[in-house]
Amino acid sequence: MQKYINPPKQDWEGLLQRPPVDVSGLFDSVATVLDDIAREGDTAIVRYSEKFDGYAGTNLVVSPEEFDIAEKQIPSELKQAIQRAAYNIDSFHKAQWQTAVKVETEPGVTCWQKSVPIEKVGLYIPGGTAPLFSTVLMLGIPARIAGCEEIVMCTPPGKTGIVNPAILYAAKTAGIKKVFKVGGIQAIGAMAYGTQTVPKVYKIFGPGNRYVTAAKQLITIRGTAIDMPAGPSEVLVMADDSANPAFVAADLLSQAEHGADSQVILLTNSPELLDATMAEIDKQVRQLPREAGASSALSNSKAFLLPSVDVMMEMSNHYAPEHLILSVRNAGQLAERVRNAGSVFIGHYSPESAGDYASGTNHTLPTHGCARAYSGVNLSSFLKKISFQEITGEGLKSLGPVIEKMAEAEELLGHKQAVSIRLEHLKS
Amino acid sequence: MQKYINPPKQDWEGLLQRPPVDVSGLFDSVATVLDDIAREGDTAIVRYSEKFDGYAGTNLVVSPEEFDIAEKQIPSELKQAIQRAAYNIDSFHKAQWQTAVKVETEPGVTCWQKSVPIEKVGLYIPGGTAPLFSTVLMLGIPARIAGCEEIVMCTPPGKTGIVNPAILYAAKTAGIKKVFKVGGIQAIGAMAYGTQTVPKVYKIFGPGNRYVTAAKQLITIRGTAIDMPAGPSEVLVMADDSANPAFVAADLLSQAEHGADSQVILLTNSPELLDATMAEIDKQVRQLPREAGASSALSNSKAFLLPSVDVMMEMSNHYAPEHLILSVRNAGQLAERVRNAGSVFIGHYSPESAGDYASGTNHTLPTHGCARAYSGVNLSSFLKKISFQEITGEGLKSLGPVIEKMAEAEELLGHKQAVSIRLEHLKS
Repeated sequence: MQKYINPPKQDWEGLLQRPPVDVSGLFDSVATVLDDIAREGDTAIVRYSEKFDGYAGTNLVVSPEEFDIAEKQIPSELKQAIQRAAYNIDSFHKAQWQTAVKVETEPGVTCWQKSVPIEKVGLYIPGGTAPLFSTVLMLGIPARIAGCEEIVMCTPPGKTGIVNPAILYAAKTAGIKKVFKVGGIQAIGAMAYGTQTVPKVYKIFGPGNRYVTAAKQLITIRGTAIDMPAGPSEVLVMADDSANPAFVAADLLSQAEHGADSQVILLTNSPELLDATMAEIDKQVRQLPREAGASSALSNSKAFLLPSVDVMMEMSNHYAPEHLILSVRNAGQLAERVRNAGSVFIGHYSPESAGDYASGTNHTLPTHGCARAYSGVNLSSFLKKISFQEITGEGLKSLGPVIEKMAEAEELLGHKQAVSIRLEHLKS
Repeated sequence: MQKYINPPKQDWEGLLQRPPVDVSGLFDSVATVLDDIAREGDTAIVRYSEKFDGYAGTNLVVSPEEFDIAEKQIPSELKQAIQRAAYNIDSFHKAQWQTAVKVETEPGVTCWQKSVPIEKVGLYIPGGTAPLFSTVLMLGIPARIAGCEEIVMCTPPGKTGIVNPAILYAAKTAGIKKVFKVGGIQAIGAMAYGTQTVPKVYKIFGPGNRYVTAAKQLITIRGTAIDMPAGPSEVLVMADDSANPAFVAADLLSQAEHGADSQVILLTNSPELLDATMAEIDKQVRQLPREAGASSALSNSKAFLLPSVDVMMEMSNHYAPEHLILSVRNAGQLAERVRNAGSVFIGHYSPESAGDYASGTNHTLPTHGCARAYSGVNLSSFLKKISFQEITGEGLKSLGPVIEKMAEAEELLGHKQAVSIRLEHLKS
C-alpha cells in the first residue's frame, strides 16, 4: 500500500482516481454477438457458448433432476448457512415495502404512486474461479418479494455442462425455477431478446466481466433496463486509534483478495494504527490462498494519514466507496454524515463479509464512484412506480383554468382544449 | 386513425409496434462534441453553440437581472397558474418521503436503508417551438425537496441569447438559481464533464431531441447517471360507452399535437363510441393551430374495437403506455389492474393535460414501452439509498459461523478471515 500523509485537498481527485472502466472498445464485437442472438436465437447461443466457454452442449435448461442432485451434494452445514442468510436477506428486503399514500393536492384532485412489480426479470450469475451462490440470494430473494411473475436466471455451466450445486441450491432457496446454462454475452443477449428456450425479460441484474458489462450497456441503449453500471469491487476503511489493526488488515485483505482490479483504501488519523495495520497486512496476506491477487491489489492501494475524523469523512464522501467500514469511536453517529457510499458497516464488529453474505443487506452495490448517484440493488430495483390521478368534476372546475392558462402559454392548444371541452360540458 | 376490429392476440405485438428509436447512428458525431467539451470546456461550448444553435455569445450565465426582467414580463394570471401548479407538484412529491425502517434481522444485527440526496444534479430544458416551462417545475421541485445541494439547469437561449421568460420564472419558482444558456449536446456535455462556467453534476434529467438522447446515452456509459431513456410521447385511451366521444377525441388530439412522432391509441368495446370519436376527431382537429402535426400523428395512430374491458386492459398492459386514460365505468377499480404504464388518469374528468401541468404528478415519464421496467421521475429519482448495518460482538458471535461457512464455500478465505479474527478476539 502506498502511504500518503495529509495530502492537500486539490490533490484528492488525482490520488483517488480509479482505473478507467471503459468497455466501449468492446462494443463492436459484442454487438455482433448480440445481433446474432437477436436473429438466430438458440442457434447463436449454442455456437457462441462453444466458442467462448467450451460448452458444446445444446441443452440449455437446468432440469428438476439437476436441482435434486445439487441439493443432495450440498453438506447440511452449508445448507443451514444458506437458509439463515436467506432468512435475513428476506427480512431486510421485505421491510422495504412502501404503502401508497394518496394525496389530495386540491379538493377533488387526488394523486398517488403505486409500486408494481416488473413482470419479467433476468438474473445473471457469473461462473469463473468461485461459485458465487450468494449473489443468487441477493438478486433472487428481492425479485420474489417484489412479486416479479417471471424470474429467469442464466449462469455458465463450465465445459462439463454442470452448474455448480451451491448455485442451484441457492436458486431453489430463492424460489427460482427457470435456470439456463448460458453465460457471458450470450446470457445477456438471450434474456434481452428472448430465444426459443430463454424468455425475454424487461430488466437484467447481476455482475460480470468486461464482456458482460459491455453487453449490458448495449442492451440498455436498445431498450432493456439494467440494475446499474458495474466495475471492480472496492472498500474504504476509516479507522482511528480505537480500531484493532488486525481487524482492519483483515477487512482490507478481504477486498484485496478479489484481485488486481480491486480498490482498497485506508483512512486514519492515527500514525500508530497505520503502522500496525501495515504490519498486520504483511503477516495476514501470506496466509491467504489468493495471496498473489491480494498482493497485486494492495500494490495499487492507498493509505492516508489525515488530521481528523472530519477530514476522513470528507475524503470518503469525495471517493464514494462501494463499501465503507467505520472502525472508529462513535461510528453510529458518524454514519449519519455519510453522503456517498453503497453499504456502510458500523463499528468494530461489522466486517464487510457480513453484508456480503448474511446480515440481510444487499451486496450488489454501486462501484467506481457510482454511489454518488446510484443505489445498490434493493426491493425497489424490482418494482416500478406508477402515478395515478383521479379528478372529480368539481376538482376540474377549480383546477381547469390553471391548466388552460399554462397550456396556452406553452402554445399547446390541444392540451388546453381537452380541459375546455370538459368545462363547457360541466357548465351545461 | 387506422381501425382494427378484435385482432387475434398473436398480432398484438406487431400492431402495437412503435417506430424504432435507435440513435446509435449519431454516436460518433455526438461523441466528438462530448470529447471536445471534456477537453476544452467553455471554448467548445461556445464554438458548438454558434454552429448548432446560431448563438454566438460567450456569456453562458443567466444573470440575476435577467431573472428580474423575466419576472416582470410574465402576466400575473400566468404567474398565479404557475404558482398553483408548483404548489400541487410540491405537495405530491413531498408526500413521497420515506422514513428509514431499522430491521434487527437477528439479535445484534441491525440493518437499515437511508435515502440521501444526490449532491449535484443537472436539469435540461429544451428550447424549440414552445417554451416548456412546465418541465422546469417537474424537475426542479422534486430536486429541491430531495435536498440536492447543487441544482444546475441548462436551456438553449435561441439566436438572441435570451432565455424565454416563463422558463426563468418557473426556475425561480422552483428555487433554481444556476441557469446556463447552453442547449443540445453541449448542455449534456457541459453538465457531465463540467466546464469553467458550468458545474459538473452526477445525474442529468430532462427531455430532448435525438441528439440530446444520444448524448445522454453516451454519458451514461461514461459514468454520469440519467433519469431514463427518452422517446416520443404517447397516450392510450380506454373508453367504453360511458365515455364522452368529444372528451376522448380531445384527449387523443392533445397527444397528437406533439407531432408526427407521437403515438395515439384508442381501445374501446363500443362500436358507437368508436364512430362518434372518429367524427369528433375530424371536427376538432381543424380547430387546432398544430393541425398538420396532429393529422400526421393521427395517420400513424390506431383504434381497436375489442370484445371487453378485460381485453382492453390486457392490451394496454402489453403496450405499456406512457399515459393511460381510463374513460370507463368503475375506472377506479380498473386502475388497480394496471401493470405497465407511466401515469394513469382515472375517470371522465381526468384529462392527460391535468398531469402534464398541474394535478401534482410528474410529467417526465417512461415512453416507448419503458414503463415495463422504469418509473417516471419522482422524489426518489433525486435520491439514492444507502444501506447501513451495525453488528454487536454478540451478534457476530451468533452470525459469524454462517458467514465463515459461506465464504469458505465461495473460496474467499480473506472474507472468512475477517470474521474469524474477530471471533477469536471475542473468545479471549
